[in-house]
Amino acid sequence: MKQFFHEVILKTKGTGLYDFTDFTKDFVHKNKLVNGILNLNVLHTSASLIIQENADPDVLYDLNNFFKKLVPMDNKLYKHNTEGKDDMPAHIKSALTNSHLTLSVKEGKVTLGTWQGLYLFEHRIESQTRIISHHFIGQ
Amino acid sequence: MKQFFHEVILKTKGTGLYDFTDFTKDFVHKNKLVNGILNLNVLHTSASLIIQENADPDVLYDLNNFFKKLVPMDNKLYKHNTEGKDDMPAHIKSALTNSHLTLSVKEGKVTLGTWQGLYLFEHRIESQTRIISHHFIGQ
Amino acid sequence: MKQFFHEVILKTKGTGLYDFTDFTKDFVHKNKLVNGILNLNVLHTSASLIIQENADPDVLYDLNNFFKKLVPMDNKLYKHNTEGKDDMPAHIKSALTNSHLTLSVKEGKVTLGTWQGLYLFEHRIESQTRIISHHFIGQ
Repeated sequence: MKQFFHEVILKTKGTGLYDFTDFTKDFVHKNKLVNGILNLNVLHTSASLIIQENADPDVLYDLNNFFKKLVPMDNKLYKHNTEGKDDMPAHIKSALTNSHLTLSVKEGKVTLGTWQGLYLFEHRIESQTRIISHHFIGQ
Repeated sequence: MKQFFHEVILKTKGTGLYDFTDFTKDFVHKNKLVNGILNLNVLHTSASLIIQENADPDVLYDLNNFFKKLVPMDNKLYKHNTEGKDDMPAHIKSALTNSHLTLSVKEGKVTLGTWQGLYLFEHRIESQTRIISHHFIGQ
Repeated sequence: MKQFFHEVILKTKGTGLYDFTDFTKDFVHKNKLVNGILNLNVLHTSASLIIQENADPDVLYDLNNFFKKLVPMDNKLYKHNTEGKDDMPAHIKSALTNSHLTLSVKEGKVTLGTWQGLYLFEHRIESQTRIISHHFIGQ
């Protein structure tokens, strides 16, 4: 059994979805990982990891837009409002989505459907540096 | 350390929850899996995997109904609307729930509470064929 | 490869978030776990596991409050209403969040960001006893 750890670092520029599929595939390829579990965690509580459609950019726009309307950036709605109008909505959006993804690697390939991509979902307005922990256990 | 891969294929007929617990238990039983991690991924972005109550069918009805109201099938709300009025809502429901489940297997049994079942949550209206990737790593 | 299983048991007193980070860290410390996957599952369908900010208690208040408004405790909205006005909303909140967390352990430490804590999100009104299954696989 082998284990590999790696951190993918993404710079974000505002709310929305950022495709990092290629970084994950590179990690698998460079380390010649064959079969095993690949566990991803975003080390922040105002961004998420999700799997989404990688074909039409409108899907990403609509997703971001839906969450924007569902969780309004309105300080009057929240007690926690000292870190900016986007901070508490960011925590809520993080709870509504996911902070980790557990993927399978089979015969050197990440198990994903044809239309599935890996996305960091940024919930903050200002530019951020986001760490996505990658951890492989297997052969 | 052993690893096993398997695909469970489900036919769905409209939005709602489809219990696949027995398929997963069969996979564990047939391969004589004892202790380890069982990672499940649905290879689509318009269906989810969730754990829910397996006792009262009304729970499944109410769940589907809640998501239907929360994410309306109304093309005017979305830019991505060429694949049917249910397509963009399906992607959003997928983001609001989960595309994977990571389970533990202990002494030959999947670790689940008494009232917990494994469900595919279908978000499309038309009949679909859904693949649920099963991957075991352990002993 | 080693595997360890453990159950953390929490008593809850009403809806809201309960920090169990220290129980998980203790499990890692006491068993001298070094590198591996730590899989957590809550064995109930009316409570969730989420990672959230551990700094300002107002964040926890706002989170609980948001979900309370998003999923009203109003029996008229649901077919499943015999187990109390909070039961069906609890199942829905569970579906909107997560019933499991998969964490990485590296060099004896759970991989978490500075501001991340592990929370049980209780969705029932009455006091409950909740089991969080802990399962480690690694070295």
